[in-house]
Amino acid sequence: MTKNRITALFGIKYPVIQAGMVWCSGWKLASSVSNAGGLGLLGAGSMHLDVLKEHITKMKLATDKPWGVNVPLLYPELDAVIDLIINEGVKIVFTSAGSPKKYTSKLKQHGITVVHVVSNSIFAKKCEEAGVDAIVAEGFEAGGHNGREETSTMVLIPLVCKATKLPVIAAGGIGSGRGMLAAFSLGADAVQIGSRFAVSAESSAHDSYKHKVIESIEGDSVLILKKLAPVRLLKNEFSQQVQLKEEHGADIEELKNLLGKGRAKKAIFEGNLSEGEIEIGQIAASINEIKSVNEIFDEILKEFKEAKDEINTSSFIF
Amino acid sequence: MTKNRITALFGIKYPVIQAGMVWCSGWKLASSVSNAGGLGLLGAGSMHLDVLKEHITKMKLATDKPWGVNVPLLYPELDAVIDLIINEGVKIVFTSAGSPKKYTSKLKQHGITVVHVVSNSIFAKKCEEAGVDAIVAEGFEAGGHNGREETSTMVLIPLVCKATKLPVIAAGGIGSGRGMLAAFSLGADAVQIGSRFAVSAESSAHDSYKHKVIESIEGDSVLILKKLAPVRLLKNEFSQQVQLKEEHGADIEELKNLLGKGRAKKAIFEGNLSEGEIEIGQIAASINEIKSVNEIFDEILKEFKEAKDEINTSSFIF
Repeated sequence: MTKNRITALFGIKYPVIQAGMVWCSGWKLASSVSNAGGLGLLGAGSMHLDVLKEHITKMKLATDKPWGVNVPLLYPELDAVIDLIINEGVKIVFTSAGSPKKYTSKLKQHGITVVHVVSNSIFAKKCEEAGVDAIVAEGFEAGGHNGREETSTMVLIPLVCKATKLPVIAAGGIGSGRGMLAAFSLGADAVQIGSRFAVSAESSAHDSYKHKVIESIEGDSVLILKKLAPVRLLKNEFSQQVQLKEEHGADIEELKNLLGKGRAKKAIFEGNLSEGEIEIGQIAASINEIKSVNEIFDEILKEFKEAKDEINTSSFIF
Repeated sequence: MTKNRITALFGIKYPVIQAGMVWCSGWKLASSVSNAGGLGLLGAGSMHLDVLKEHITKMKLATDKPWGVNVPLLYPELDAVIDLIINEGVKIVFTSAGSPKKYTSKLKQHGITVVHVVSNSIFAKKCEEAGVDAIVAEGFEAGGHNGREETSTMVLIPLVCKATKLPVIAAGGIGSGRGMLAAFSLGADAVQIGSRFAVSAESSAHDSYKHKVIESIEGDSVLILKKLAPVRLLKNEFSQQVQLKEEHGADIEELKNLLGKGRAKKAIFEGNLSEGEIEIGQIAASINEIKSVNEIFDEILKEFKEAKDEINTSSFIF
């Protein structure tokens, strides 16, 4: 029997991580995931310091299971966020959208387990050098901010697993037991699931956003703003405005002006589906219901087991 | 024991199909794949009638195993190609890049097994209506001509499997035993492998093309000409010219003029790596050696078995 390195690293039951997501993953979602046996992450990217502190306090009351905080390294107040996390005794931190060198050694000095998100194997190696404990490798199909090279999860996971000896958490396009089994087949030690939990009952996203996502179909998500910072979202009036500008050769400044500020909050938290960024992954096309975290875990684990049994009993023999 | 529907449909040993590829898959490659226990396909897309006839004749001499012809429905002489295929007694035809309604019933009337390539589940349903025997579902990461919706293999396969009862062959981003196991995890009955065979010893591609592909790394492939007909290829002078025009808002006519004719032949068959289209899938980044078809089969089957055993012995239990 080989050990699952991710369940061992975090002290969790199932190798299922809930992605830290802006405007979705507060204490309610994250604690539900941790209580279900996965790893819940608070998404600090959409929280001011006082809000993050409040969520950490509530998180401690809501679960005695392991949990963490996701910190995208592209917002202001970063030093203060990291200090708060250390002072509050948070045990696990996922960093993303920046260099793993920035905070890893400081966090490690305080006994914190550090995971960094990458979208290629060159950055996976940099994570190893920076001393992180595990890597999230996220493919092109993932929602929200995304890598520039557009490498899909199917191609990316084996490449990252080859490049590093660290445990690898696969992300992007995974929202079911079959997706989880595929990720393990590719060499991953665990999966990170975003979209599926973004539209769970416990997600703090607006109901209009959740319904828009579960009603979406194949081809409804697009990767836009590639000249600026690529982001995957559902097509709407805003995305069409951006694409029209992009097709006519708009430069970075024009795109920045059109984007403005607070577009993700507008769609995800306030339910403004025409002007906001409806960030979500391609897997949205296969999500058709708003379910509780417990129901989602039951479904994923059941499907995983069934798919595994199916493969073991198929008649072509190797 | 459940039966593998694809090995049963074609009468082959392993559920591994070699993609029909322009300038790569002549009788030499296709017969080697069929002799190794997979399904070899002649790529009619780059053959004039007389050349196709010659390859069919040589194919019959080179293997007594099942094999087929891939016909992209976007070239001239299509009616004549279909008639030749029927008259020559070809048993299996893969059609792509067009409507499955066009030739399926005619081919079926002559007892030919028909497979059609799709990139979304709406077309998968159309294939079912048209009476095809199986479907290739091809993701965003695939080389050469590609779907417009950019759905990755990880997301696409379960959606297509849900949409149709027909056997599904997964394509795009698959070139190893791990990729094959992932495809089966997602619900596929078989895999179609292109890039890996495009740079095999038996491929008729130019040596310079093969070396360029095996030397390429992550992020070297791009999907361009989206306004015209999306195509995935390795970055080179030609692709940079296209991307520059695209960034500045070039229209379809400008792109058509820049593309001209014969770009794929130029790179793949003639080895002109600056002016030609170096068509290949994202998986190129993980292909590092030119190997024989038999070596490739051995490697894929061995890795498939190892990955399956690894998953079965991992310690988290569902």
